[in-house]
Amino acid sequence: MDATYTALGKHGYADLTIQTIADEFSKSKSLLYYHYDAKDDLLVDFLDWLVEEFASEVGADPAGNPEDRVRDLFEMLVPEDDGSEGIRLSLLELRMRAPRDERFAKRFDALDERVQAEFAAAVREGIARDRFRDVDAEFVADTLYSLATGTTVRRLTTDYDGESAQRGLDDVIDRLRA
Amino acid sequence: MDATYTALGKHGYADLTIQTIADEFSKSKSLLYYHYDAKDDLLVDFLDWLVEEFASEVGADPAGNPEDRVRDLFEMLVPEDDGSEGIRLSLLELRMRAPRDERFAKRFDALDERVQAEFAAAVREGIARDRFRDVDAEFVADTLYSLATGTTVRRLTTDYDGESAQRGLDDVIDRLRA
Repeated sequence: MDATYTALGKHGYADLTIQTIADEFSKSKSLLYYHYDAKDDLLVDFLDWLVEEFASEVGADPAGNPEDRVRDLFEMLVPEDDGSEGIRLSLLELRMRAPRDERFAKRFDALDERVQAEFAAAVREGIARDRFRDVDAEFVADTLYSLATGTTVRRLTTDYDGESAQRGLDDVIDRLRA
Repeated sequence: MDATYTALGKHGYADLTIQTIADEFSKSKSLLYYHYDAKDDLLVDFLDWLVEEFASEVGADPAGNPEDRVRDLFEMLVPEDDGSEGIRLSLLELRMRAPRDERFAKRFDALDERVQAEFAAAVREGIARDRFRDVDAEFVADTLYSLATGTTVRRLTTDYDGESAQRGLDDVIDRLRA
């Protein structure tokens, strides 16, 4: 899965092959060929792994207060100039395959549900702890996730600097505060 | 350009060929082959055409009041169940090529600047006509465009229904009102 992550980030979906993944794989390459006939089969398993990774990352050590939990999640979704552009772009390319391949559709549904649930849980925690007003947590979660997704798409594909996304996040949090 | 629009919506970027475009073309097919060696050359011209189409569509008959102008633009960007899903998905696939091909990058920069400028112009018009508070029009435009883009990506690739985007738009407009 690490090898797939690296190869996908380097080559993008279109130029990814089992061979380019094998090139990043320190263990037996024949093992990889034994398990996977086609790159899409491997990518389906990769997406399952990614959903698990995401779930364990956000679940492991949630920030001390609900506001930081919302911020941390938003910032995890929006790329910085941190070298993650390749893998993020490739994941968007994979996402575009969802309407044409239901195996991908199922994984992106699962991923998005997980992200949405995490945003909503952070907002609900803020309400329960009297930090946030009694808002519709699912609606706020939707807004934050769409804002993060749109910012990511624009940052990766145009010269948009994404600065206003941070300000947009501050705005949403200001309005959440009790 | 109409033939390209139709073929791209039907086949998506990966399966698009000059032949699939020629199949939608009522005039001389040899003319098409004479002008374009590769599908990407044709798609670059297609994107130029699309930016022009967008500019003339939003410029031709702006809604009577600034609020409707903002709404009309937002709704133009977010897909309804209107059969436009194919072409919208294919345009997102093209957009993902921008970081790997600067000809595409240039066109999506131009398109996004045009959309951003139109949102900002609508907000500034609202301020000038005392319908909206004296907000930062560029920031509001960025927020609306990212929200619309993220909603579109999620709607096209998962079972997200996009309902909260309409509510998000209402929210933004409520806060704009003077």
